[in-house]
Parts: sequence; C-alpha cells; structure tokens
Amino acid sequence: MTTSTALLLADLVGVAVFAASGASAAVVKRLDLFGVVFVGFVAALGGGILRDLVVDEVPPLAFADWRYATTAVLTSAVVFRWHPHLARLRTTVLVLDAAGLALFTVTGTLRALDAQVPPVGACLVGMLTGIGGGLGRDLLTGEIPVVLRREIYAVAALVGATAVAALDGLGRTGPVPLTAAAVLVFGLRLVALRRRWSAPVPVLRPPHAPDGQPPAS
Amino acid sequence: MTTSTALLLADLVGVAVFAASGASAAVVKRLDLFGVVFVGFVAALGGGILRDLVVDEVPPLAFADWRYATTAVLTSAVVFRWHPHLARLRTTVLVLDAAGLALFTVTGTLRALDAQVPPVGACLVGMLTGIGGGLGRDLLTGEIPVVLRREIYAVAALVGATAVAALDGLGRTGPVPLTAAAVLVFGLRLVALRRRWSAPVPVLRPPHAPDGQPPAS
Amino acid sequence: MTTSTALLLADLVGVAVFAASGASAAVVKRLDLFGVVFVGFVAALGGGILRDLVVDEVPPLAFADWRYATTAVLTSAVVFRWHPHLARLRTTVLVLDAAGLALFTVTGTLRALDAQVPPVGACLVGMLTGIGGGLGRDLLTGEIPVVLRREIYAVAALVGATAVAALDGLGRTGPVPLTAAAVLVFGLRLVALRRRWSAPVPVLRPPHAPDGQPPAS
Repeated sequence: MTTSTALLLADLVGVAVFAASGASAAVVKRLDLFGVVFVGFVAALGGGILRDLVVDEVPPLAFADWRYATTAVLTSAVVFRWHPHLARLRTTVLVLDAAGLALFTVTGTLRALDAQVPPVGACLVGMLTGIGGGLGRDLLTGEIPVVLRREIYAVAALVGATAVAALDGLGRTGPVPLTAAAVLVFGLRLVALRRRWSAPVPVLRPPHAPDGQPPAS
Repeated sequence: MTTSTALLLADLVGVAVFAASGASAAVVKRLDLFGVVFVGFVAALGGGILRDLVVDEVPPLAFADWRYATTAVLTSAVVFRWHPHLARLRTTVLVLDAAGLALFTVTGTLRALDAQVPPVGACLVGMLTGIGGGLGRDLLTGEIPVVLRREIYAVAALVGATAVAALDGLGRTGPVPLTAAAVLVFGLRLVALRRRWSAPVPVLRPPHAPDGQPPAS
Repeated sequence: MTTSTALLLADLVGVAVFAASGASAAVVKRLDLFGVVFVGFVAALGGGILRDLVVDEVPPLAFADWRYATTAVLTSAVVFRWHPHLARLRTTVLVLDAAGLALFTVTGTLRALDAQVPPVGACLVGMLTGIGGGLGRDLLTGEIPVVLRREIYAVAALVGATAVAALDGLGRTGPVPLTAAAVLVFGLRLVALRRRWSAPVPVLRPPHAPDGQPPAS
C-alpha cells in the first residue's frame, strides 16, 4: 500500500491523529515530555506493530520506515507544547480520529488477507489495527480502555473489516470499494458520536432498589 | 494436536471456559457488550496468541482457525446476556477453569518443544499459555493480575509444564502420560482451591506493631 | 554477542539488576512468592523478549538460553526472602539499574541493526529493550510506568541508541566505541539522578491560582 503516495499520506494522517489523541491523554496525566511522546507513539503505532507481529511482517513498518515514527514524535511534541490552544479543536480531533480508525481498519484487514490469514482472523486483525493504539494508550495511562466502553467504536471497525473481507472474497479490492468500506466505518462512528449510540451494557441490580421487577404495591 | 477431533473439542472447551471468566470480569466492570466480548476474547485466546508469537507460528491459531474466535465470542455473549443465572455456577466455573489451565499448559509446552524451544524455555512458554489469558483479562480491567496473587495457580501450571518437558525428554509423549500431566495440574489446582493453599507472601512489618520479634516485656 | 563470556556475564548482571527492581516493586504490592518471581522475570526479560519479537529472532533469547531465566528467577527469590536487608542497598541498586539500562540499550540497538532494521527503527528498538522491562513491571503492578515520568531515563537510552546507530553507520562497532556509548548512557543517568534533572512537564493552570502570568497587583 505504501508504494502509492496518496495512501502513504493518508496513513501518516492517521498516525498523526492517533499520536495527538495519545499525547493529549498523557498531558492530562502530567507525564513529562518523553512520556507524552512515548504514549503518542504507542497510540499512533501500537495497532500497526501488533498487526505486523501477528502477520509476521518484521521488522514492523513502524520501525522499518522512519516517516511513521517521525510523524508520531513530532505530532506528540506539538501537542505537548501547544495543548492549551488545541483544546478548542476537540470536535476536529474526534472527526480525524474517526478517519484514522476507518483507514487503519481497512489497511489492517487488507494486510492480513495478503498474508494469507483466513477471513475471520483477518477481520479480527483489522479491528485490532484500528483500536490497538487506543488500547495501548489507555493501558499506559492507567485507564480501563475507553474503546471497550465508548459509543460504537470497535464495532464500527469490525463492520468495516467484515466489509473488506467480503469484498476480498468477491475479488473486488479496487480503490472504489475499499474507499466505500472506509467511508462506512467513518460514517458509522460519526453518527454514533452525534446520536450517542452505544452498545448495550449488562443489566445489574443497583444496590438501592430492585431492578427489572415491577413495584410491589 | 488439532488434527484429533477429541483434542480440538478439549481445546474449545478450554477457550469457552476462559472466555466465560473474562466476560464475567468485564460484566462486573460494567463494560458494554463489545467490551465484554473483547475481554472474553483476550482471556480465552491471549495466552495462545502469546505462545504462537514466541514460537513464530504465524498467523496465530486464534486468527487462523475461525472456530477458536467464534467459540470465545459466543460464550462471552452468553455470559453478557445471562450472567445473573450463571452466578450460581461459580463452583462449576472454577472446576472448568482448572481444567482449562491444565489443558492449555500441556498443549502450550508441547507446541514450544515441537518448535525447538529448549526445555526450560518450553516450560515457561507452557506456563504463559496457561496463565496468559488471565493476565490479559486483568490488565484490561485495571486489576493487578490475580494469577500473581491467588492460591497455587501459576505454580500448578509450572509443575505441569515441567512434567511435560521431562516426559518429552524421555520420549514418552503418548496420550496416556500427557493426560497424566494434565490431571496433575488439574488436581493440584483443585486441592489448592479446597485447602486454600497459597504461595508464601513477603514478611512486612505492619505499621502498628513489631513483627517477627518477640515482645519486649 | 553472547559468544563472548565477558558480554554474557555483563548481560546476566543486567538481568539480575532488573529482576531485583521488579521483585522489589512486587514485594511492596504484597504479591506472593510466585508473583514476585513473575514480575522480576518480566522486568528482567520483557525488554529483550519485545526486541526479539520485533526483529523476529525466535524463540526469544529469554526462552532459548536457560541462563537468562534462571538468573532472573533466582535473583527475584533472593529479593523475596531478604528484602528487608536489601533496603539499605538502594543507592547500589540505582547505580546497577543505570548500568543495566546502558548495557541493554547498546546490545538492543546492535541486535536490531544486525537484523537489518533501519537506523531510526533500530534506535527505537534499542530504547525499548532498555526500558521495556520497567514498563512491564509497572503495568503488572498497576502503576503508570515510572520510566514515563522519572528524571532523564528513557531519554538517556535514546541518546545511547542514537550514538550506537551513528557508530554503526561509520563502521565503528568495535568494543571501545560501544563501551563509550554504554558509559554515555550510564553517566547521563547518574548525573540526572544526582542533579534531579528531568524532562519538562506540560504547563497546566492549577485550579487555585493563575500560572505563568504575573500577579495583577
């Protein structure tokens, strides 16, 4: 995929966006400059490193192509320095984050299929590529990963990965169908954000009142 | 090992049991449906993925054979939906968990030996296969891993892995000796549960009283 | 590197020092004997395992050479048993920890370059080899990794890794230049400890007073 300049640029935009999300989380935890850059690096490149280890593409792209690490480090340093001014960009960041999720999911699924991973496994690898960076970011900053709790996020990635695997099964992996799959993930995530869609949570009985039972009187 | 239907079935039972333990932990943390399924997936398949990365069997079995992921996902979804009714099954789950630990330890050690890992390393890989899923589950839900604190658990795995490596050194890796090794892990874990055996904890001086010293008077 | 007895010994000293740091952290968390040994193992060998997975040297040295695991386990057990007497050794441990960081960074960078990882990636791999064990130790004991917060630590590793990559580019990877790179990391870390150097932290406005602004009166 990286032979195409357009795709490389898109990949680096995804890296920058995820680095910004990781660096912002680290700033909130008051980590130092190195900590901010490190968490940004993991958020931007952790999903791809995991993908490359699983499909045995070594060394992983994050270590083999210097442009990936450089983009992640510079973006994180910018967030460290100018983060108060970036707070107003919150909506922009959420939209770019959705774009990064869409892109990483599609390219991750494709790479897994190229490496002869069967379809079900390739969907899982694609989803992990999309959400892996966010998982690493939250583990490093001591949070239960938000991708496990937030409105439709990983589910959007899984839907997109399934679409890519289906297109691959039909032999339709040209630019147009793949872009459509990315737009599907992007759109699902944006609609979920706007409408506050979320996956169902388990029914637990609260301690102060009976639940799921009609009142006795 | 998976060529034999009996062993595949046993493997999938282990996957289901560990998925149930992960999903239960996620329900307690009030993760949403996706989070419950994801933690269940990691608990069921994380140990095996780690093993396959270490012995360079890529893509890992969890991604290469759809039956593993499907079993983990369906079991987690069942726990999500019916968990109040499963609370009464606690003893059953502990017994099945011991069975899963036994099985994963034995198969993990064997796979490492097959991949030319030397005996000491193969024991460690086997133990990690058995306890790795529980480690991932606890990291994702923000707990200090219980396998590091609970009654004889990892130690039972290590004993079993050592037994398998010894049997392999003697050229005795037929079904009967391997089953005996699995029964050894299973039995050790059950006896430890019942008698509340645990490994020793470090001696710390409590703040309110001298410890390890005879009273002065 | 391990063909040389001197380097193997140096490697094992690094393993022992990092195992001691991990085991000490686990003792503070009151983990049991197994937990202490496990955290010590991860702290001593986690960085190297990560390095070997990334450069596809499988099985990782930690599993392929029994002396590594044995050193980590024995050291951790000694800390478990005699930790009250070791508290007075705090300064010694910090100095040895700096030595371990220096050594692991240099050998990690070299191994990555040997495996054809390009220079920027090799620097990252070398740094991760040095700090990876400490990251694993803190994730397992439920802390935000201190290497992300402490005085110049990872930065010292990164400087040393860059020096090794530069020496390699100049074809100067004999014992003398490499030792100089290790001494550089070691010295940077010791000076940072003594002078309490740290990387800058982000500027946040404290809730009780304006910050970064002169008083109004």
